[in-house]
Amino acid sequence: MGTEFLKIKEVEEAGKIIKELFNELYTQKSEEIAIENSYKKVLFFDIKSSINLPPFNRSLKDGFAINSKDSFGASEETPISLKCIDSVEAGSFSKKTMKKGECVEISTGAPIPDGADAVAMVEFSEKEEDDVFLFKSVAPNDDIAIKGSDIEKNKLLLKKKTILSPDKIGVLSAQGINKIAIFKSPIINIISTGNELLKENEEIKYGKIYDVNTNAIKNAVISCGGYGIAQGIVKDNYDELKTNIQKSLKTSDIVICSGGTSAGVGDVLRHVLDDIGEVIIHGISVKPGKPTIIGKIDNKIIIGLPGNPVSALIIFNVFIAPNIRRLAGLNEIEESRIVTSTLSKRLHSSKGRMQYSLVKLEDKLAIPIIKDSGAITSLADADGYVKIPKSVELIDEGEEVKVTLFND
Amino acid sequence: MGTEFLKIKEVEEAGKIIKELFNELYTQKSEEIAIENSYKKVLFFDIKSSINLPPFNRSLKDGFAINSKDSFGASEETPISLKCIDSVEAGSFSKKTMKKGECVEISTGAPIPDGADAVAMVEFSEKEEDDVFLFKSVAPNDDIAIKGSDIEKNKLLLKKKTILSPDKIGVLSAQGINKIAIFKSPIINIISTGNELLKENEEIKYGKIYDVNTNAIKNAVISCGGYGIAQGIVKDNYDELKTNIQKSLKTSDIVICSGGTSAGVGDVLRHVLDDIGEVIIHGISVKPGKPTIIGKIDNKIIIGLPGNPVSALIIFNVFIAPNIRRLAGLNEIEESRIVTSTLSKRLHSSKGRMQYSLVKLEDKLAIPIIKDSGAITSLADADGYVKIPKSVELIDEGEEVKVTLFND
Repeated sequence: MGTEFLKIKEVEEAGKIIKELFNELYTQKSEEIAIENSYKKVLFFDIKSSINLPPFNRSLKDGFAINSKDSFGASEETPISLKCIDSVEAGSFSKKTMKKGECVEISTGAPIPDGADAVAMVEFSEKEEDDVFLFKSVAPNDDIAIKGSDIEKNKLLLKKKTILSPDKIGVLSAQGINKIAIFKSPIINIISTGNELLKENEEIKYGKIYDVNTNAIKNAVISCGGYGIAQGIVKDNYDELKTNIQKSLKTSDIVICSGGTSAGVGDVLRHVLDDIGEVIIHGISVKPGKPTIIGKIDNKIIIGLPGNPVSALIIFNVFIAPNIRRLAGLNEIEESRIVTSTLSKRLHSSKGRMQYSLVKLEDKLAIPIIKDSGAITSLADADGYVKIPKSVELIDEGEEVKVTLFND
Repeated sequence: MGTEFLKIKEVEEAGKIIKELFNELYTQKSEEIAIENSYKKVLFFDIKSSINLPPFNRSLKDGFAINSKDSFGASEETPISLKCIDSVEAGSFSKKTMKKGECVEISTGAPIPDGADAVAMVEFSEKEEDDVFLFKSVAPNDDIAIKGSDIEKNKLLLKKKTILSPDKIGVLSAQGINKIAIFKSPIINIISTGNELLKENEEIKYGKIYDVNTNAIKNAVISCGGYGIAQGIVKDNYDELKTNIQKSLKTSDIVICSGGTSAGVGDVLRHVLDDIGEVIIHGISVKPGKPTIIGKIDNKIIIGLPGNPVSALIIFNVFIAPNIRRLAGLNEIEESRIVTSTLSKRLHSSKGRMQYSLVKLEDKLAIPIIKDSGAITSLADADGYVKIPKSVELIDEGEEVKVTLFND
């Protein structure tokens, strides 16, 4: 027994290798979905307008469609009288063509009849049977939205990678688009390994703990735009893990295991990869999370996160999340999740390893969370983490730090 | 025909009335869901720990469980030899009690055997058959996570209103919690009214336009933590609207209609409310969105948004969204969505009405979007809006403005 890490990598190198591996094995894919369910989905293509908007000359007001020339000179004192020959509401249209001295009663949203070039607002008009009196002159095109004036057919409407918000969904709906190509979420199977692990609904037994990583990593995958499938708990056993990975590979693009990655007793993932795939990284020079494994089987990436949930989540966020986000059409890192703060007290780091230290943000201070690395409650308190380069042994109270916030 | 608004209200008053109406008619409700599907859901209660974490004294390292006194004086030069009487892996436990001079081989995560008070790391030990040599002395409690040291039973774990992120979901999982009470999303039925409206998959016809509000408002409801149901398009017809509202009320807490709210030809929602319910507000002194209706039927709120999608979304965001967010356990306004920016060019406002003007953010400038109020493309460009008080007629280029970003 003894710690033995082959293929141990520095943080920058590991990040680069993992990114290249993702780029080598995966491409961004699209899928079609109904627009009504497209909230927060990401457009896979540029979208051009397929119709003119408005699709016809459209009244912006309730009133009377007129020929503007007929209104010139109208005032409160000298109203001009027109003959009302038809009435048109939104959704229908008038088949009549207006001649000089005629008008058509019109509702907001209705098409402007032939022969009209303006709308006289109801507020400045009066109707008595078929006679309409205008009290104000109206200029050509007044209160008309001209066909195509909002957007013409075949113009760029929304760019590829637009994240669909309610307003952008409205923009697509206005074009009569009912299905849309979005970035397909990579499918990621999640396996927790460990003989000590219990499912959350099992009764606690001496020596056992509840599995945290299945739910935490599954939801971390979702937060990056991935589709997470919980494969469940697998014993720290070569055959069982191998069978479950092979089963997972049938339905998923990527398999994320956790636990079973240390070089001690439980080093089964390493053996599975050696036998039916390839180990690419075993060990990253980082605290926490040193015993991380990256490998591949059948041209699919297999990730072995540490069993410790805090380590697992940090390694996922730092090394895996940016790659899933990229596949899902998102920016690798959300700029808004990196904030500058002031350290509330001195933070020590291990020499020779990049360190990620959990912090809580309070009143613009970053408060280090000092608990042993297995403490789940440190996650309950943490808002994010501070990255301490391997050459730095401590950051002093009052120093400025960049905090990467956890996805919420 | 003529514009007639009864019960017209100023913006502040309307906001107050709507908030009070929501508080009078609705209470925050809870529902139970599986923890694995709880991403972004909001905790309805404070959650206390139900078990100690760790649930037992747990080894933090691979190595040997020892009595620390036995190791005192050990060094590379003067190793101390112990008798290994058992081996325990994570998930199991040793039934033996260690005596002086004895040790138990132990894996990370395994329970500390009786008689041991520390773990000697494998890196500073050596095993030869049943003899273990320690090369370093170890202090009491070294590399042990003491039962309850992470969190004791019955302590506050997560506060009510915590939004469940992957890490917080992990915290709950560690307690073996598999179901959780969250804020129940208010159920909101969405009806678009208008004879001119087409479903997004229908063929375009002269005089018709595609319905925008069903999808836009449904997804705006989702963005506030509500559950939106699309009831579809209803003709601008008293009986049809009444039937559809009554049908919607059977399955929903709130009904949001759009269109049919002007005091012109299409004023059918007003009549339905007058007959089977009550009109509370008809008209808000705001641009855009004046013809907004707030009413109630059978102690449920009926909202009539303007038909114009830009107006409808702004009115929804300003007056309705904060109330839905509150019911869903969220803050009424997300502070992070209000940003300060500099106006890129002069912005005019109508005298006597509060105005909400769409802007696009670019290089820290707020660029006004000057299009007619029905322009859908203004939504394609807009990032949010600037609020201009009714006493202000213009904001000059270079002035600082607060931009409320649309939900994304």
